Amino acid sequence: MHLVQPTKITIALDMMGGDHGPLATLPAAIAAVQENPRLHLTLCGDAELLQQHLQQAGFHNHPRLQLLHCTQHVSMAEKPSSALRNKRDSSMRIALELVEQGQATACVSAGNTGALIAMAHFVLKMLPGVERPALISALPSTTNQPVYMLDLGATVNCNADTLFQFAVMGAVMSEEVESLSAPRVALLNMGEEEIKGSDQIKQASVQLSECEELNYIGYIEGNDIFSGKADVIICDGFVGNVALKTCEGVATLIMSRIRARLMSSFFGRITAKLAQSWFKSLVQGVNPDQYNGASLIGLRGIVVKSHGNASKEAFLSAIRQAVREVERQVPAKIKHRLEQVLIGKA
Amino acid sequence: MHLVQPTKITIALDMMGGDHGPLATLPAAIAAVQENPRLHLTLCGDAELLQQHLQQAGFHNHPRLQLLHCTQHVSMAEKPSSALRNKRDSSMRIALELVEQGQATACVSAGNTGALIAMAHFVLKMLPGVERPALISALPSTTNQPVYMLDLGATVNCNADTLFQFAVMGAVMSEEVESLSAPRVALLNMGEEEIKGSDQIKQASVQLSECEELNYIGYIEGNDIFSGKADVIICDGFVGNVALKTCEGVATLIMSRIRARLMSSFFGRITAKLAQSWFKSLVQGVNPDQYNGASLIGLRGIVVKSHGNASKEAFLSAIRQAVREVERQVPAKIKHRLEQVLIGKA
Repeated sequence: MHLVQPTKITIALDMMGGDHGPLATLPAAIAAVQENPRLHLTLCGDAELLQQHLQQAGFHNHPRLQLLHCTQHVSMAEKPSSALRNKRDSSMRIALELVEQGQATACVSAGNTGALIAMAHFVLKMLPGVERPALISALPSTTNQPVYMLDLGATVNCNADTLFQFAVMGAVMSEEVESLSAPRVALLNMGEEEIKGSDQIKQASVQLSECEELNYIGYIEGNDIFSGKADVIICDGFVGNVALKTCEGVATLIMSRIRARLMSSFFGRITAKLAQSWFKSLVQGVNPDQYNGASLIGLRGIVVKSHGNASKEAFLSAIRQAVREVERQVPAKIKHRLEQVLIGKA
Repeated sequence: MHLVQPTKITIALDMMGGDHGPLATLPAAIAAVQENPRLHLTLCGDAELLQQHLQQAGFHNHPRLQLLHCTQHVSMAEKPSSALRNKRDSSMRIALELVEQGQATACVSAGNTGALIAMAHFVLKMLPGVERPALISALPSTTNQPVYMLDLGATVNCNADTLFQFAVMGAVMSEEVESLSAPRVALLNMGEEEIKGSDQIKQASVQLSECEELNYIGYIEGNDIFSGKADVIICDGFVGNVALKTCEGVATLIMSRIRARLMSSFFGRITAKLAQSWFKSLVQGVNPDQYNGASLIGLRGIVVKSHGNASKEAFLSAIRQAVREVERQVPAKIKHRLEQVLIGKA
């Protein structure tokens, strides 16, 4: 496929999502249009509130920032089913509908993950050949080459076909966004031996071994997620979610131990003052959930999910991720690759 | 139940297991009998080899170290089914049989985990009321109160009953080994809301809510494993194994980043020299798999599994864990509690 770079990219932002709402999303939107002259943003949310913030920042007349008033927003604690039924004029829903209607090519939200998955699935629909959506994120590695892992929580109880489709989608993401050719794809398992793991994983492994379009390297274990052994790691949404959140837990634990040790001596207390931010950036850098956007893939449109607790920087990074996926036409590439693979399987 | 402290504790050691074999297990055995005058150890393995090592260390006539010659040993890569069939005179199998025959009250091995679980299950049999064995380990927490997590890889695809039984066993471990009264028991899930997670987890949650003998506090997520919110965390063996190994991966990643950052500046290189071991102990301290023994519970005997890569210190720590479980009569307590709970459920 030949890529024609679009001269104008329009992205719809759910301005009201996340713990900080416009306090994080608005500065991120302003920074995004400033750094990217091709970027147009549609800011979905409480127009009056957003207008006030824009005025305070001196950006109320920016030609590439458009306000779209929504009367509702989805709270962080709301049940997905309730949000789907009752929040049809929410900033989240409207941002997704702009993508569905072709008025935006991607949507970014820091809101309620469950509600976003349910709404995106309902509004955008699945790509042909994909049964379930997946959350994918780029994790850090000891080799500094990002590792794509999916699913991180969109689909629980994956069968072998779903895991296989995730592998195809993950490989496309790695090829397109990281420009890797033949990324190494692995299944997350509890042992490297062929005999371990659930039936779904064993069946998926057989399917992947037989697929010539993928560079499948077999099983890896949790301790190798960050070792750079694989470029794409496939797992069930439950397992991926627990693994990702466990990283956050370990990072917090290590920070608390560093603090406690430093505080236990006089020189330590001085070091702590000097090096606190150094340690913090270092440990938080391995906490991918907090600092990278996760993409919801398998849908007929681009949706990037920023962490609920996203800062301005994290939300900006999610917007950048959406821009990359627009430029690389990720959904079209996934669709194309799935067609190729399914012909190969037939 | 009234506890009479035994005047003599006999533990059978699989001396040939683990990556380092007797090079790690023998120094640990010597240190263990030196620090505990009530402890008798039966050293199962290649008697000639072990005798040589004992002689070199000047401990060949120690009255509380007894050699038991075994002609075989289970390799780290061997399939559990093959080990079960073909390694009847292995150091691992003999150590387990000593427990079954009442000649030892616990067994410690750093060998092949899958083979140990299969053999222990076969030789020792399950306690009445327990369907499947579980691997349990004490994890560090930000509050410094150890958190018990199970299952860490013995049983994949747990149903609600199995998860419930794990909760009872985990609570007994926490009460007996940590002397906690009414430890807080939680189910690991991908969200705290009641609607999330698999059917097995939801059903287990209902069973646990109805059990008056347990202090069940509901769901927790991966980021709270180490936060001290719960004293006992219950999950399927696949999920627990991935979570535990992910901790190892994160610890390795953080160490590699600390090293890279320090090496990038002159003062950093000096700091690195001075603080390398400080960082190492700190980061490795959050890698529980490597430094604590995991207990295989639910069986009619005490089995402690040390990490395959166990050093002398790690194997010694596993022996100490076995001693604590003997002193607290953990299997009898689990049996007793299960009887109480099952009467309550009936």
